[in-house]
Amino acid sequence: MDSVDEILIKKLPKNEVDKFNRIFFGRKDHSTLRLKDETKKASENDNFDVFGYSFDATKEQLRQPRVLRLGLVQHSIVLPTHKPITEQRTAIFHKVKKIIEIAASEGVKILCLQETWAMPFFLCTREKEKWSQFAESAQFGPSTMFLSELAKKHEMVIISPILEIDENATWWNTAVVINEKGHYLGKHRKNHLPSVGSFSETAYYSPGNTNHPVFDTKYAKIAINICYGRHHALNWLMFGLNGAEIVFNPAATISEFGESFWGIEARNAAIANGYFTCSINRVGTEEFNLNDKVIKRTYYGSSYVTAPNGIRTPMMSRQKDGLLTAEVDLNACRQVKDQWGFNMTSRLDMYAESLQNIVENKGDNQ
Amino acid sequence: MDSVDEILIKKLPKNEVDKFNRIFFGRKDHSTLRLKDETKKASENDNFDVFGYSFDATKEQLRQPRVLRLGLVQHSIVLPTHKPITEQRTAIFHKVKKIIEIAASEGVKILCLQETWAMPFFLCTREKEKWSQFAESAQFGPSTMFLSELAKKHEMVIISPILEIDENATWWNTAVVINEKGHYLGKHRKNHLPSVGSFSETAYYSPGNTNHPVFDTKYAKIAINICYGRHHALNWLMFGLNGAEIVFNPAATISEFGESFWGIEARNAAIANGYFTCSINRVGTEEFNLNDKVIKRTYYGSSYVTAPNGIRTPMMSRQKDGLLTAEVDLNACRQVKDQWGFNMTSRLDMYAESLQNIVENKGDNQ
Repeated sequence: MDSVDEILIKKLPKNEVDKFNRIFFGRKDHSTLRLKDETKKASENDNFDVFGYSFDATKEQLRQPRVLRLGLVQHSIVLPTHKPITEQRTAIFHKVKKIIEIAASEGVKILCLQETWAMPFFLCTREKEKWSQFAESAQFGPSTMFLSELAKKHEMVIISPILEIDENATWWNTAVVINEKGHYLGKHRKNHLPSVGSFSETAYYSPGNTNHPVFDTKYAKIAINICYGRHHALNWLMFGLNGAEIVFNPAATISEFGESFWGIEARNAAIANGYFTCSINRVGTEEFNLNDKVIKRTYYGSSYVTAPNGIRTPMMSRQKDGLLTAEVDLNACRQVKDQWGFNMTSRLDMYAESLQNIVENKGDNQ
Repeated sequence: MDSVDEILIKKLPKNEVDKFNRIFFGRKDHSTLRLKDETKKASENDNFDVFGYSFDATKEQLRQPRVLRLGLVQHSIVLPTHKPITEQRTAIFHKVKKIIEIAASEGVKILCLQETWAMPFFLCTREKEKWSQFAESAQFGPSTMFLSELAKKHEMVIISPILEIDENATWWNTAVVINEKGHYLGKHRKNHLPSVGSFSETAYYSPGNTNHPVFDTKYAKIAINICYGRHHALNWLMFGLNGAEIVFNPAATISEFGESFWGIEARNAAIANGYFTCSINRVGTEEFNLNDKVIKRTYYGSSYVTAPNGIRTPMMSRQKDGLLTAEVDLNACRQVKDQWGFNMTSRLDMYAESLQNIVENKGDNQ
C-alpha cells in the first residue's frame, strides 16, 4: 500500500470527503501549491514524488506575513550495504542533490533531510566497528561540505542529520544546521536513544549533551527533535519554550515499530506547543549481511507537515523517494497561541516543582 | 454525520480495510465484546448506543492477568435549560441511571461520566449567578449521593465530574471519585482552565489546587485529566509519574474547537505515558436564552479508549447517547514500557532543571 491518506482521499465516497477531511485533517480541502512543469518532468525522470501544500494565517495590522517554503526530503539508499562506504555515500549525494535542486527551484528556504541521511541505517545489525567509517565530523565532514555548497548556492538553510564522531572518537546522532550562506551554524545531538527490538542505539552512541537549542536562522527559529525524541513530550516542550517556530523530526522508523503513532506524535506536539512540525522518515528496504544471516529493514516514509492549529498535510508515499514542500506563514504560531492559550495556562511553576520532587524521589505532593 | 470512524470502517473498499486499520487504529480487527441480549434491547428501547471492545496483553509467568471492564458514558441533557434546576438534574439522573445499570450488567467495574455531567454546560453564557445552584458539594452534593448508591449496589468505582462549590463559596471544576463501597474516595480539581472563544471558565472558577492525584482503587490506579487539561502534556505526564494505569479525560467540547485534535491528544498521552486513556465528551445541542439572544452549543461525543500501545477503539457516535465498554488487561502498561522504554529514557533530571531555569526567567541552558 502506498499511503493511508491516499486511500482516504481517493476512495472515500465523494459526499463524505469534505466532512471527513474537516474532522480528520482539520480542514475541508488541502490547499495545494502549483508546481512548475520542470518539477513534474524531473520527478518523473528520476522517479521521486513532489507534493506541495500551503497553510494560511490571518492577515495582521502590525506584522507583515512571514511566508516561506519548507522542504522535507525522504529517500532510499542507492547501493547495496556491502559496497565501499565512499561509493555508497556518493551515490546518495548524487540522488539527494537532484531533489535539493528541485526544492530550490520551487523556492524552498529551509530543507531537512532524514535521520543519518547519508548512510544505511545499520543500527539494527548490532555491529559497530564495521560501520564506523560512516561516522563523520559535524563541522568538517563530507555531508556538511557537500550540503554547504548547495546551501550557499540556493540561499537555503539545510538541516543535515548525520552520524557524528567527535575528536574523542565518541559517536553521536546529530543534526547539523547549515545556514543560507553555507556556513556551519551549529548542531543538536539526539536527546533520547532507543533500545527497542533490534535497534539498540545506546550501544553505538550517548544521549545528547546539547540540551534543546533553537537556531535563529535568517528565515525562522528552528529546532530538531531527532527520531525517538518524538515520543518524549518534554523534548517537544523545551524546543517550544526556547522559541522554536518550526521543529523538524528526522526519523528512521519501520512499520513494526508503531507506524500507528507516526501521525499522532508530531501532530500532537504542533498543537500543544504552537509551532509547525515536519516529520521525515526514510523509505525503502535495506539489507545487511550478518554472518550467515540477511537482515532486512523496510522504512515507511510517510513524511508530513502539521501546522500549529493541528491541520496536517497528507503523508508522502510509504515507498517512494520524495520532496514535500509546504508554504507556511510563521505568524500562525502566535495566532494559535492567542486563540488557544495553552502557553498562558501552562502552570510551568507547578510542574518545575513537581518534576523536581519526582527526581529527588520525594514523590509529587499530591 | 454520525462518526468519522464509521465512514472509514463501513465505506472503505474491503480490500483496503485491514491495511488501513493496522496503520490507523494500530490493529487489523477491532476485538469486539459480545454483549447481552438484554443490553441490546435496553439500548433500543431507550435510544442509546452500547459498544464493547477488548484489548489483550501478553500472558506472564509471575503475574495473573488483571482484566477488568471500563465504562464511558456520553449523554445529552434532557430538559430545556430554563426549567427548574432540580427538574433538569433529576431528568439527567434518570437517564444516566439506566445506562449505569446496563454497564453494571455488562460487568463494568470503573465508570466515568462526562464533564459536569449533571447539568447543561452553561459556561458559554458568561452568566454566573443565574446558574450557581448547579454547583454542589463534592462530598455531600446530590450527584455524589445519587452515584454512591449505584456504586455500592454494583461494586463499581464511579468518577463523577461536577461543578463543585466549597465552604467558601468558591467554585471548582472537579472530578469526584466514589469507590466500590459507595464511599467518597477523593477528588481532583481541573488544573488548566480555558478561556477560548465563548467559553471563559476562568470567570467561573479557579485553576485546580489538588495537583495530580492518583486514586488507588480496588480495581486499578486511576486519575482524571479534566477536559482542557488534555492539551497539556505535563498534566498527562504527572498522572503517569504518580502511578496511574488509567487516565480518564471527561470533556465538554464542540466541533468548532479542535475536533481534529480529539483523536490525537489522549491517544498521544496513552503512548507517551504507558497507560490507558478514556476520552469522554457530551453529545447533543444545548440552548440558552440570553437576554434577546439564543445561544446554541452542539457537542460531538466521539468517546473512545486508547491502550498504552496506541491501539484505539472506534469512536462513539457524534450525536447519540451511549456507553462504551472496554475490557483491558492492566498488565499491558508494564509490558509496553518494557517494549518501548519511554520511561527509562525520559531524562527527567534534565527537564526538571530546564523547567526551573525557564520558570526563573534564566532561559534554558542551551
